[in-house]
Amino acid sequence: MDVDDFLKEKELETGDYIKIEKDSKLIEGRVMPSSKGNKLVLKLNNGYNIGIELEEIKLKEKISSSEEKQKKEIEIEENEDLPLISVLSTGGTIASSVDYRTGAVTSQFDADDILANIPELSKYANFRGKVVCNILSENMEPKYWKEIANSVYKEIKKGVDGVIIAHGTDTMAYTASALSFMLETPVPIALVGSQRSADRPSSDNVLNAISAAKYASSNIAETAIVMHAESSDNYCYAHRGTKARKMHTSRRDAFRSINKNPIAKIDDEVQLLDEDVNKRDEKSLKLKDGLNTNCGLLKFTPGLDEEILDKYCETFDGIVLEGTGLGHVSRSWISKIKEANKEGIPIVMTSQCLYGRVCDRVYDTGRDLLEAGVIEGEDMLPETALIKLMWVMNRTEDLEKIKELMQENLAGEITNRTKKQTYLI
Amino acid sequence: MDVDDFLKEKELETGDYIKIEKDSKLIEGRVMPSSKGNKLVLKLNNGYNIGIELEEIKLKEKISSSEEKQKKEIEIEENEDLPLISVLSTGGTIASSVDYRTGAVTSQFDADDILANIPELSKYANFRGKVVCNILSENMEPKYWKEIANSVYKEIKKGVDGVIIAHGTDTMAYTASALSFMLETPVPIALVGSQRSADRPSSDNVLNAISAAKYASSNIAETAIVMHAESSDNYCYAHRGTKARKMHTSRRDAFRSINKNPIAKIDDEVQLLDEDVNKRDEKSLKLKDGLNTNCGLLKFTPGLDEEILDKYCETFDGIVLEGTGLGHVSRSWISKIKEANKEGIPIVMTSQCLYGRVCDRVYDTGRDLLEAGVIEGEDMLPETALIKLMWVMNRTEDLEKIKELMQENLAGEITNRTKKQTYLI
Repeated sequence: MDVDDFLKEKELETGDYIKIEKDSKLIEGRVMPSSKGNKLVLKLNNGYNIGIELEEIKLKEKISSSEEKQKKEIEIEENEDLPLISVLSTGGTIASSVDYRTGAVTSQFDADDILANIPELSKYANFRGKVVCNILSENMEPKYWKEIANSVYKEIKKGVDGVIIAHGTDTMAYTASALSFMLETPVPIALVGSQRSADRPSSDNVLNAISAAKYASSNIAETAIVMHAESSDNYCYAHRGTKARKMHTSRRDAFRSINKNPIAKIDDEVQLLDEDVNKRDEKSLKLKDGLNTNCGLLKFTPGLDEEILDKYCETFDGIVLEGTGLGHVSRSWISKIKEANKEGIPIVMTSQCLYGRVCDRVYDTGRDLLEAGVIEGEDMLPETALIKLMWVMNRTEDLEKIKELMQENLAGEITNRTKKQTYLI
Repeated sequence: MDVDDFLKEKELETGDYIKIEKDSKLIEGRVMPSSKGNKLVLKLNNGYNIGIELEEIKLKEKISSSEEKQKKEIEIEENEDLPLISVLSTGGTIASSVDYRTGAVTSQFDADDILANIPELSKYANFRGKVVCNILSENMEPKYWKEIANSVYKEIKKGVDGVIIAHGTDTMAYTASALSFMLETPVPIALVGSQRSADRPSSDNVLNAISAAKYASSNIAETAIVMHAESSDNYCYAHRGTKARKMHTSRRDAFRSINKNPIAKIDDEVQLLDEDVNKRDEKSLKLKDGLNTNCGLLKFTPGLDEEILDKYCETFDGIVLEGTGLGHVSRSWISKIKEANKEGIPIVMTSQCLYGRVCDRVYDTGRDLLEAGVIEGEDMLPETALIKLMWVMNRTEDLEKIKELMQENLAGEITNRTKKQTYLI
């Protein structure tokens, strides 16, 4: 008997809330759409999923999904002693379930659904939900960064104690970086997502969402990505928005802080790992959401013809290079960079190594690049440098001023000295 | 008294070989050009440099650099019991000293100089040196890859037991990748470099060069990068040429194997860490150095206008995309990719995460990308995929055949299953 026959025989449907007996223990939860073969997947009340062999199941009770929904709505009552957190939904895996058309995962839930799926969240805060957009994060664009920043601004203005943004993981680090420049915040802002969709037994969405709620209730007023710190379901890190990067296509601990320790470790409590953070209410709320989105990132590879730089200069107002090593490109590029500079196009140098700092004062090529007007990107991630350049170029068109701002630490994106233990951990 | 006064007073010059007494111990070595302030830097006979406070120095004996060179030439005598290794010099830090014009580092040594600087190498093998080119590695180009491959081919043909290629670190991984596709080899091929120039007290060139000699004498017939495994001077790793990446701008342990364990750990001996390697004389020597160098790498960033793909299609015959997450770009790109495919331009998808595997079967966007003709780059590094595409497109112009070859493991660039412990170590 496979799971379809089983469901038919017991008159069950996906979404039904059931109580079963297994090995003399009572288990209750909701039938998930990923049930297949000889396994039934149940979402437990704590939000975690389990798979159970059909032959081990004794069905005890069935509550229809509508009855159950009513029950849940009663459960999630406000507790006046808890902080108030806004959950802004933008789409992505944490808010996705299976798409029946293709069998793949697509976005369809809103913030309320997340709460209904993770009732344990109600222990930590009162929530209010809002859908800002509903897209997979590879379709994220600067115009949505603005919408998100404006929604966050409004929520904080209304007096919430913290904000959680549910976001797809693909481009989460870009959005976190953009929000870091766009918002000065008196409260914590957490971006959170899931590397596995919510209906899979191995989903990471519960721990991530609960950790995000703890961070958003904390005393740390920084924009951060809150995601699994390890591949096991133990604890999360809060990574600074301008220093975070998705470093693995599929692992739950895909996100890493580059050239900087994470802001905090989140298990039972939020433990600060970086002293250099703004505390709650230290800064007043400010929105600076203007961007010159017409900036481009160009990764140098050996032998890449310098003509490509002409094409980028025709297309973009400002360019970030991902050079090699300490920040190099082929010597043949230097005159093109000089030309770009004369035309008022800033060229920012970052490194494709990702870890470490750009330093063009060591080798000949670097010195000549500096003389040609290249702006050293310090220890900024290429992606962060790109977004910062968009932000800076909306503020000034003066090349000298752009250079100055690009090399100044505005939102934790530049650190003066990199701690040794930040490499590949 | 600063070091200039000291040298003047003692009638010493950079390059002189001296014997001194410090704390009642005799030290001998060569005066290095980086001596400054109140410190004299000496290169010891084992190749390591030390800095000594001027006031602690009692000069005992001075041998002029010409006398000393004679002495060294006598020292480096051939030992018939040792293997014969060819050292091919291409330039870069391991072969560089200070450029007096700018105060920065530039290339000027050849293979003989490396041997003269690291006499300890003569314990492990007999060497013969050849200069293939003399460039900083940011100026490396596919045409030099060919020259290096041809030189390696000739040396192996002549019967050497192993080859060492001294190479700047910036683009070493690209060259290693290119040579992996260009050469089938019955002997070990080691690329080696230095993150600190040879005249600095903290240089890593000695351990790297000795480890490369051990690797080149070993039983492993693979093209590999041999560099520090840790920031301390303890041991080296041999990283597979198609799986290695420079992950830090300045650390001595900048190189990492991505999605794969290193081939070997090299301390006193060469310890195999990966069973999946070719052994000495298993393969016969083959040179396949043809490349279609007109391929380009494009890194996707949020909101990047799909028009850029038109520009790439006008410029290049084949394109590697660095997508987000599992291998995504914005939905708005899909029709452009379909068009490119119709024009016979292959589009290979890799991930900017670097770690993990591209899998476009999970989400809607990915499925549509596959339908549009995108070639999944599996767990290949974007840089490796670019070089492989150049190599494959020189062999066939048939899109189906290109797709097939891109997804077949040709030189260790694709692994079927990634071991868990290969993430960020």
